[in-house]
Amino acid sequence: MPVILYDLCGADEFQRFSPYCWRVKMALAHKGLGWEERPTPFTKVREVAGGISATVPVIEDAQHTISDSWDIATYLEDTYPDRPTLFGGEAGRALSRFVESWVNTSVNTKLVHLVVKDIHDILSPPDQAYFRETREKRLGHTLEELHENRHERLEAFRLSLQPMRQMLKSQAFIGGMSPLFADYILFGTLQWPRVASNFRLLEAGDPVADWFERCLDLHNHLGRNQPAAA
Amino acid sequence: MPVILYDLCGADEFQRFSPYCWRVKMALAHKGLGWEERPTPFTKVREVAGGISATVPVIEDAQHTISDSWDIATYLEDTYPDRPTLFGGEAGRALSRFVESWVNTSVNTKLVHLVVKDIHDILSPPDQAYFRETREKRLGHTLEELHENRHERLEAFRLSLQPMRQMLKSQAFIGGMSPLFADYILFGTLQWPRVASNFRLLEAGDPVADWFERCLDLHNHLGRNQPAAA
Repeated sequence: MPVILYDLCGADEFQRFSPYCWRVKMALAHKGLGWEERPTPFTKVREVAGGISATVPVIEDAQHTISDSWDIATYLEDTYPDRPTLFGGEAGRALSRFVESWVNTSVNTKLVHLVVKDIHDILSPPDQAYFRETREKRLGHTLEELHENRHERLEAFRLSLQPMRQMLKSQAFIGGMSPLFADYILFGTLQWPRVASNFRLLEAGDPVADWFERCLDLHNHLGRNQPAAA
Repeated sequence: MPVILYDLCGADEFQRFSPYCWRVKMALAHKGLGWEERPTPFTKVREVAGGISATVPVIEDAQHTISDSWDIATYLEDTYPDRPTLFGGEAGRALSRFVESWVNTSVNTKLVHLVVKDIHDILSPPDQAYFRETREKRLGHTLEELHENRHERLEAFRLSLQPMRQMLKSQAFIGGMSPLFADYILFGTLQWPRVASNFRLLEAGDPVADWFERCLDLHNHLGRNQPAAA
């Protein structure tokens, strides 16, 4: 039986933009596991798997239900040790936790300000109401205020990716010659605006943009098969 | 024969503050290798090992002379594979390169503005002249300007360490339960102001400060045995 993945969706159920769900999809593909997606709008997340989590991704695999993209990745690594590794050993797992912490605190936080209004706009009306209320409270501004000022914040977002540019001088992926879960963490974060927004985030020729393109082609073009925002 | 390490020093040759040399000392201790330090002021670096490098650390080990802290760490790992690992495998090595890129681009660059005048002040007069000229050109300000404004920049430095705070919620070291070279990379960067400056960088109770204290005690208190600035 394939893994079941509850995956966030927009008003169009084929529009899948969650950075955390993308981390999991890339991890499932990396492990060579089949999965079935259950598109889930924001306001239906609490109905998933008996209300186990306030957020997706959630997966069901045999008797196990797991939420949180990090916990899912470690579950997959430990449950399917004979398939391609997501971490490359215990040290790689610990170091990947640092990469996750960096993406979540230094990249996602800057990116959300740039595209939050665009994300809102692709949601269904009940999801829009939920999203506006929670995000405006969290970010301390209206979605419209954030949208209007976003050009001022673009440079800070681009600067947040300096560690990647430096690293990419010596290797093609965070995992080295080939990708590991650490790559999928940042990939998910950049797939989020690709799917939900047409705001141009990275300049042409940016090594991070080149790395992202390489990631889009992984696993039989899994990421690229998801249409970009028009 | 022990490894010879050319280690940057101040006017007082026992004052060893180079973040990159500290990365190497911690790596040598981690590998359980003995070493002899050759204190080297800035203006003598070009005389080291036949002028092989414009910077220290430089090590000599048997017939090999290696410069650059990353290259030295990988040399030690590859030359002494039976001793405790610095990377925990190839994935760990690749991921450590990301951590190095993060520290160098996101942490060092903010920290140098805060303590560059203090570093200048512990150097001998010829080193001071060299240091002032190169650093003022690189940073675009006089040392005195940077010193005067440093309180305004302190918060940005503290914020740059957010990924560590997040990670430290789930593990004690970047390497996991115990330290790896990735930890020594950031350790060296924080040992630099500890030795050269009495400017208070981290607040009491900051998890990063607690992690740094743990690092100071590693390898028979190697880091702590170096006196802090008065």
